[in-house]
Amino acid sequence: MISKALGKYVQSLHQKKYRQRHGAFLVEGGKSVLELLSSDLEAEHVLVTAEFVAQHRAHLPAHLALTISTEYELTQLGTLATNTTALAVARLPAEKPLPATLPETGLLLALDEVRDPGNLGTLLRLADWYGLPGVVLSPGCADAYSPKTVAATMGAFARVHVWERDLAAWLPTLPAVVGVFGADLQGDNVHRLTLRPSGVLVMGSESHGLTPAVESCLTRRLHIPRGATGGAESLNVAISAAILLDNFFRNQ
Amino acid sequence: MISKALGKYVQSLHQKKYRQRHGAFLVEGGKSVLELLSSDLEAEHVLVTAEFVAQHRAHLPAHLALTISTEYELTQLGTLATNTTALAVARLPAEKPLPATLPETGLLLALDEVRDPGNLGTLLRLADWYGLPGVVLSPGCADAYSPKTVAATMGAFARVHVWERDLAAWLPTLPAVVGVFGADLQGDNVHRLTLRPSGVLVMGSESHGLTPAVESCLTRRLHIPRGATGGAESLNVAISAAILLDNFFRNQ
Repeated sequence: MISKALGKYVQSLHQKKYRQRHGAFLVEGGKSVLELLSSDLEAEHVLVTAEFVAQHRAHLPAHLALTISTEYELTQLGTLATNTTALAVARLPAEKPLPATLPETGLLLALDEVRDPGNLGTLLRLADWYGLPGVVLSPGCADAYSPKTVAATMGAFARVHVWERDLAAWLPTLPAVVGVFGADLQGDNVHRLTLRPSGVLVMGSESHGLTPAVESCLTRRLHIPRGATGGAESLNVAISAAILLDNFFRNQ
Repeated sequence: MISKALGKYVQSLHQKKYRQRHGAFLVEGGKSVLELLSSDLEAEHVLVTAEFVAQHRAHLPAHLALTISTEYELTQLGTLATNTTALAVARLPAEKPLPATLPETGLLLALDEVRDPGNLGTLLRLADWYGLPGVVLSPGCADAYSPKTVAATMGAFARVHVWERDLAAWLPTLPAVVGVFGADLQGDNVHRLTLRPSGVLVMGSESHGLTPAVESCLTRRLHIPRGATGGAESLNVAISAAILLDNFFRNQ
């Protein structure tokens, strides 16, 4: 049974304003809730159907207080069209310091005004696949902890470190030896380069590309060759990032 | 001014049943409508705001009958949250014969039960970027001409050939020399192969992968290596296809 106060609290977390005020965010659906529970993140409330508990008892920590709920309640409180399994409230992770040596020892993904939560979630999932040390978001990006972003990460929200930085201010502070890579139709053909996963790969918004101030911070422009008979003018930002990341990680 | 009959007709095309009955589909938004008008597809009705006409007169064929509409009307008739520019009704293209020699002379993308129209549209856009001769869809895929798919193609709907085939019946009819490629965690590392763009690349649904009957038609299983410290279990179907296609096209 869900109290009125808990219901109101959960619903308030649909909005960024309340996620920030309460330092908490929503995790919806059984798969995402199980990823949360097996991660370092702290779960504040876990609402589950009796059926879900019966199916996943082995993966639910014994000390965990569960609130048994109906499918109707989970759907009412959340943002999914239907939720037949589980919903949790998790604490927003505190931002860890961004190690100054990082872009020399690993590849960071930096996103400049990526406003679509679906694209952002897909990019976080990609960062998780390649084991990137983290993702740096410009203040104009979609919220990494909005319900849509969390859903699109397919569980990666529980593992990927996220930092928020004004990219045009942050990138110039990096040591000169750090490569700052970006996609550019006039850039170097990635098929002819031997890239190593170190530095920062900056991806811009789909409609406007990189903002001029961030664009001017690039030290290396990369181009994904289009097929000889190809027609499309561009690729989706997550698709471009995937192809570029695969090119960074193929020479290990 | 839009007649009641035209309005009803346009709205009926939100549904596949009526798209098939009338042999027509919707194209929404200025960019997509301009792509339609510069393609070989036939536009049956073109509804535009006066502002859009003023801005794009040079790209609108002189013989074209335009119906001047308000933003409110375009939004009411279509599926977009707002449409301030244009909406067209296009004839569904007739399916051309699938040349029997094709998979030897070019790379076809085949999709097995890709049910999400956003993913399907992104995949068609990707096929357009690489200039693939076309995409073969299993009957269980999303409709290539649904409004959501068309929007996600970002204009590629006007250029990419689409065929519908029962993949488990069609793939075995291909000459033995044709490679039938698919993604498989136990497959060969694509970074260690020299792939050429010929044959068929089959991608399965995100939740279930390839159906068993299609999976058994593969002659070559490909694996996209995950980062050494990567956490994600899988990649989105369009992301996987993008990385694989880049690996097919890098050795030209």
